Amino acid sequence: MKLLEEKIAAECSVFEGDILKVDGFLNHRLDVAFLNEVGKEFARLFAGGGVNKILTVEASGIAVACLAAQHFTPVPPVVFAKKNSPKNIGKDVFSAKVFSFTRGTSTEISVSKLYLSPADKLLIIDDFLAKGSALCALADIADAAGAHIVGAGIVIEKAYQGGGGVLRARGIRVESLAMIESMCPEAGIKFRS
Amino acid sequence: MKLLEEKIAAECSVFEGDILKVDGFLNHRLDVAFLNEVGKEFARLFAGGGVNKILTVEASGIAVACLAAQHFTPVPPVVFAKKNSPKNIGKDVFSAKVFSFTRGTSTEISVSKLYLSPADKLLIIDDFLAKGSALCALADIADAAGAHIVGAGIVIEKAYQGGGGVLRARGIRVESLAMIESMCPEAGIKFRS
Repeated sequence: MKLLEEKIAAECSVFEGDILKVDGFLNHRLDVAFLNEVGKEFARLFAGGGVNKILTVEASGIAVACLAAQHFTPVPPVVFAKKNSPKNIGKDVFSAKVFSFTRGTSTEISVSKLYLSPADKLLIIDDFLAKGSALCALADIADAAGAHIVGAGIVIEKAYQGGGGVLRARGIRVESLAMIESMCPEAGIKFRS
Repeated sequence: MKLLEEKIAAECSVFEGDILKVDGFLNHRLDVAFLNEVGKEFARLFAGGGVNKILTVEASGIAVACLAAQHFTPVPPVVFAKKNSPKNIGKDVFSAKVFSFTRGTSTEISVSKLYLSPADKLLIIDDFLAKGSALCALADIADAAGAHIVGAGIVIEKAYQGGGGVLRARGIRVESLAMIESMCPEAGIKFRS
C-alpha cells in the first residue's frame, strides 16, 4: 500500500534495537482517517473470503480490526485476545503464549470459548509482524477453536525477521500492507517492492 | 440511548460483586456495527464542541473511540493512555493512577507528552463509568497537558456508584448513553429514565 509506505517514510523513525516508532499513527496516537483507509484495503484484499469474524489481540490491533470490520458486508464482529488471562473472561478459554523478543518476556493471551467456534471464518489482524509469535499464538487459538483462518492482515511486516514465512508455511494467506526489507537508524527504511 | 438499553437488557447478565458482563458486544467480542451507532451518537451529542482529539485508555475504550472519531468532521485522531508505563513510549509522559475497586489494585496510565497539548479540545471516551477513577485519571492527564476538555462520552454509567457526580462536580460535561440506576443478579438491571 503505497500511501502507507509514504507515511512510514515521512513520519516514523528507526531506533537502535530494531525499533520502528509508529506511535504517531498506529500504536499510541491513532490516525483514524488514515487507519480507515488501511481497513478498507484489508476489506478489498479479503473480499469474497467469507470472513464472518475478525480476531486480533489487545491493544493496538483493536483500532485497525474495528475500522476494517465496517468495510465488510455484513459487518463481522471483532474478538480481541486478552493479555495475562484476566479473571473477568472466565476460566473456559483458549490460550497461547506470545514471546516478546524486544522485552525478553512471555505473555499468555486468551479468548473466551464463548466467542470462537468451528463456524467461524476468521480474518486475523495485527499491527506488526516480526518473528510471528503473536500471530502464531492467534492462529493456535483459532485452530484450537476449530475455526477456519481465511487469512492474516498485517499493517507492517518486518520481512527480514521471518515471521511471515512461518505463517505462510502453515498455509495461512498473509497480506502485509507494508513490507520492510531492512531498516537501521543510519540508512533508514527500505521497503520490499 | 434506547437501543443500547435494549441491548444491555437482552444480552447482558449481572453477577455477584456488582459485575455487569458486557463481554458479548463491548469488552471482548466487539459488535462493530452496533458500536458504530454508539460512536455516531457521541458525535451527535458533542457536535459543535470543536473536538479535535479523542482521549481514551486501553484496551476496551479504543474501539468506541475510533468508531466515534470517524463521525466528527474533520476526523480527530485518538490517543489512548497506556497501562503500566511501557518503556516504548519514552519517559516524557503525563501519568496518573487508576484504582480498580473490583480488583483492589492500582495501575499507572500514561500518555506521551508528544501527543497532548494546550491546543487540544478533548473528548474523553470510555466504555464504563463507575466510581470514576479511570475518567478522573484521564482528566488529570488532560489538565496536566493544559488541554481543554469538551466533555466525556461514556457507554455505560453505573449511576449509583457516584463517579459521574465526581466528574460533573469538576465541571466536565458527561454524556452517558446508558445510566444504570441499580442492578443485582436477582432483580436484574434498572435504568435511570
